[in-house]
Amino acid sequence: MILINGQYEAQISVHDRALQYGDGLFETFAVKDGKPLAWEEHIQRLEKGCKQLYITCPEISLLHTECLQLCTSVELGVLKLILSRGSGGRGYTPPGISATTRIISLHEWPDHPSSYHQNGIGISICETRLGHSPALSGIKHLNRLEQVLLGRELSLKQSPEGIALDIDDNVIEACKSNVFLVKNDVLITPMLDRAGVEGVIRNRIIEIAECANSQVQIRHVRVEELLGADEVFLSNSIIGIWPVNRINSVSYEPGKYTRNLQQQLVNEQIVVLP
Amino acid sequence: MILINGQYEAQISVHDRALQYGDGLFETFAVKDGKPLAWEEHIQRLEKGCKQLYITCPEISLLHTECLQLCTSVELGVLKLILSRGSGGRGYTPPGISATTRIISLHEWPDHPSSYHQNGIGISICETRLGHSPALSGIKHLNRLEQVLLGRELSLKQSPEGIALDIDDNVIEACKSNVFLVKNDVLITPMLDRAGVEGVIRNRIIEIAECANSQVQIRHVRVEELLGADEVFLSNSIIGIWPVNRINSVSYEPGKYTRNLQQQLVNEQIVVLP
Repeated sequence: MILINGQYEAQISVHDRALQYGDGLFETFAVKDGKPLAWEEHIQRLEKGCKQLYITCPEISLLHTECLQLCTSVELGVLKLILSRGSGGRGYTPPGISATTRIISLHEWPDHPSSYHQNGIGISICETRLGHSPALSGIKHLNRLEQVLLGRELSLKQSPEGIALDIDDNVIEACKSNVFLVKNDVLITPMLDRAGVEGVIRNRIIEIAECANSQVQIRHVRVEELLGADEVFLSNSIIGIWPVNRINSVSYEPGKYTRNLQQQLVNEQIVVLP
Repeated sequence: MILINGQYEAQISVHDRALQYGDGLFETFAVKDGKPLAWEEHIQRLEKGCKQLYITCPEISLLHTECLQLCTSVELGVLKLILSRGSGGRGYTPPGISATTRIISLHEWPDHPSSYHQNGIGISICETRLGHSPALSGIKHLNRLEQVLLGRELSLKQSPEGIALDIDDNVIEACKSNVFLVKNDVLITPMLDRAGVEGVIRNRIIEIAECANSQVQIRHVRVEELLGADEVFLSNSIIGIWPVNRINSVSYEPGKYTRNLQQQLVNEQIVVLP
């Protein structure tokens, strides 16, 4: 089921700038019992992205109505909201006034094994490197070719996820999730000023840890540090938190930070318990 | 007029990966008397892009037939060919087998003043910076948000073009064209290993200069060097060569390299004389 600008349609003009230049943003919501979870958090990031790209954000109440319309009677699912700058403009230059296109689509809940949440996953460091683009980093824009190449690499390795480094060999994120590590009771996650997406769940995890007076560091992270961590986990809106139990040949145990944060996110009902 | 996979249509599935992730490539041809110019050169770059992104390139003879079909009886125009990886796949991961989408559209010839070609243009250095992405540099892919932001900046300045630097302040290109400078009889153009598009006309200019035994350097270029050059010009498939007569407050005269190369490209009939 797809709603384009409020109409049930499945096709869009080829002049739409999302198709021509990846000129837009998106959000992916977990849907539980008819409601998109972490609505406020996603919308905050969407508004930030609109500001950064100078895209006119539609009325939030309109987006909310349309998203709820698609989610009615959905017990468990995934909702994707795409905002494109709209049609037209000459070449790269955005048109002076454009009507932002709203594309909202409903998808099946992915059938990840529940062991991923309980026992964790074994992953590796990807060869594909993330570039640096300060103009675009942090937001969830539609220029996702690097993630496509990462996704391809993971698919060839038959791996559910993988650690993505940037061109300076810093740890940035995983292909479709953010990465955290714990070392000596400090929760650490990479700084995303040059690459990466600031995940909604990532930001909530940071808040939860800070509220609990845990020490949190957001900074550049090297591979050696990741490999020497006490705990490692991944987060996004659909998976919640997956413990990492192995990177390359290094093993980890899902520890108390990972377990507490998993529990807390479920308690807050911003992720779904698998 | 638009041909999608050989059919006259103007709409496309929202599941197409060009829209979802900018997962594709494009080429922009000048069309003269029913023919797309520099066909071989564009197709070479397209094939290189397909290889780099692991996109299945359609039969070239099919692309040629469809492009000619749209260009019939077009005296002067612009043809845009988009290849998208196609529909589907779960998330970022490309589907195992996918049918590449072909989108071919015809556009009006842009009405640039002929003085741009004759007397040159005055431009400035843009504030928007190009990121570094070695995995994507050189090819003409659909992840063009940085160019959209550059285009917006130029539109606010009411400037036809502008010099784009990368995040290390190297000169890379202009918003929609490549940049060359001449200093002490050496033709210099930026290396595009971390950012930028290898223009079809750029590559032909390099070949022409090398064949004429001119000294050519492809390397990193700093702003000071650009500002201290004897000649500066921009190139792409639609404009051919535009001399630059001013950058910020520095003036240039269109010199003999610029004029010779302009003439040569017109003689070879790979650009259109305005």
